[in-house]
Amino acid sequence: MNKYDIIIVGGGPAGLTAAIYAVRANMKTLILDKLAPGGQIINTNEIENYTGMGAINGADLAIKMFEHTQELGAEFDYKTVIEIEDMGKTKKVKCEEDSCEYEASAVIIATGTSPRRLGIKGEEEHAGGGLSWCAICDGAQYKGKDVVVIGGGNSAVEESIYLAGIVNKLTVITMFDLTADPKACDKLRAMENVTVYPFQEILEFTGETSLEGVRFKSTKEDTAEKYVTCDGIFEYIGLEPTADFCKPLGILNSHGFIEGDASMQTKIPGVFGAGDVTSKMLRQVVTACSDGAIAANAASKYVESLR
Amino acid sequence: MNKYDIIIVGGGPAGLTAAIYAVRANMKTLILDKLAPGGQIINTNEIENYTGMGAINGADLAIKMFEHTQELGAEFDYKTVIEIEDMGKTKKVKCEEDSCEYEASAVIIATGTSPRRLGIKGEEEHAGGGLSWCAICDGAQYKGKDVVVIGGGNSAVEESIYLAGIVNKLTVITMFDLTADPKACDKLRAMENVTVYPFQEILEFTGETSLEGVRFKSTKEDTAEKYVTCDGIFEYIGLEPTADFCKPLGILNSHGFIEGDASMQTKIPGVFGAGDVTSKMLRQVVTACSDGAIAANAASKYVESLR
Repeated sequence: MNKYDIIIVGGGPAGLTAAIYAVRANMKTLILDKLAPGGQIINTNEIENYTGMGAINGADLAIKMFEHTQELGAEFDYKTVIEIEDMGKTKKVKCEEDSCEYEASAVIIATGTSPRRLGIKGEEEHAGGGLSWCAICDGAQYKGKDVVVIGGGNSAVEESIYLAGIVNKLTVITMFDLTADPKACDKLRAMENVTVYPFQEILEFTGETSLEGVRFKSTKEDTAEKYVTCDGIFEYIGLEPTADFCKPLGILNSHGFIEGDASMQTKIPGVFGAGDVTSKMLRQVVTACSDGAIAANAASKYVESLR
Repeated sequence: MNKYDIIIVGGGPAGLTAAIYAVRANMKTLILDKLAPGGQIINTNEIENYTGMGAINGADLAIKMFEHTQELGAEFDYKTVIEIEDMGKTKKVKCEEDSCEYEASAVIIATGTSPRRLGIKGEEEHAGGGLSWCAICDGAQYKGKDVVVIGGGNSAVEESIYLAGIVNKLTVITMFDLTADPKACDKLRAMENVTVYPFQEILEFTGETSLEGVRFKSTKEDTAEKYVTCDGIFEYIGLEPTADFCKPLGILNSHGFIEGDASMQTKIPGVFGAGDVTSKMLRQVVTACSDGAIAANAASKYVESLR
């Protein structure tokens, strides 16, 4: 009952694509995710670079991808995987909920990443209050209010453009310069209600009971500390791999990402990585899907080879 | 007028995705293809594994992908590229038509592959007559007739399933066993009007004025030569990279595929490969798209670095 050919841990674009390829290879396939399928794209307002979809809302794309797996017959369950045990030809997948266990011949780990934190005063206190990591989830509540975005990469700039269309005044504070796609940076800088402060150290999120503002300071000039009042803060300062549960397997690199070969197989036969959680060049929806296809193709051949 | 930041040679999934990423990085981008955009997927009846699209006709997917590039502002032109000349910071792209020339800072080669041929008696004679490489293009004319498919890989099996739904009797003759996805192989074998002959040497396509049949012989058993009469033959025996025009650049491997690094750059700075024409693990629509994204991302950074 709890035995599968391939278990996929994580239901983002990599995991869902892996499921499509696994099912089409006649593998009994289960996808496990603690959250709704789609992974990080659920929290993305607009995705403009998934070939063939034009500009599409992230949650809509997530639904299309999930439905695709369901039409083909992949199983999905809401579970939090806490351990994968390598028993040779069988892998035990252990979950938090009701100490449930599954067995599979091959496992594909596609658990993605989670937002990195600054670790400054006021961050813990305002998390989930005035401080958010998801503009599409929480942006609407700041209509007509003043908001700060921390960060300058692709996510920071894209979500800033989105937020600037909703809020009164948007301040972007970043540790370095804006490093997103030039087109997106130009668009953000040209928006009337946006101020960008590059090369800043973020010192503190202030406010006792509710968030009041951000203290920050130039890292380039010896100028006075600055202070911006705001009603909400969105942090986009990078990603941490969601792979702590893989540590006992010894398949992570020094940054905590999964290392694999060209077929996405880790050093453990039958254990594969796919998508953002792996060590890779470019983290995009379409590159995650590609990983999923490659991993599932190799995993299916591995499972066939055991028969 | 004929100067671009990035020229993409080939308008299949890899090239179209490269265009999406290049345009979004603010690059002046031109796609060149001698045929209609979409590449090989135009000739594919149903694509069931491009994540989020469910089961979709190949030509429909091609149109969606092309329209996506047009919405973002990529240029497209019908041209046959015959030479790429490396002038250092500039690459000259020379076309067959009216000896036209373009210049670009970076070139992404995504020209895909073309069908391999058997090289047997009767093949040249019946090409484009009774012999075809495209079931979706030519299958309909064999309604109620008898057809042979040569090959046993993914394409051969998928297109055989498609043809079996149209024709009277389908005979699949392959040099080895069926090597496609097990699910697809099972489906094909279970079809009532299909006979599969594995491990055969194909000797001749017979017929003077029109195609009459196929002569073939077991490679495993010392049995008599066999003969199957048919009205049409479809060959699916593998792919040749479309990269002869790249030979002078010295970027091809011994099989004629483009060799690149992790960012898809060849040994020539500013010259990138993407998709089926490159040396790679798994040739699928989604892996081609991933290549295009990676190549265009790296090419855009290369172009920025020249400014």
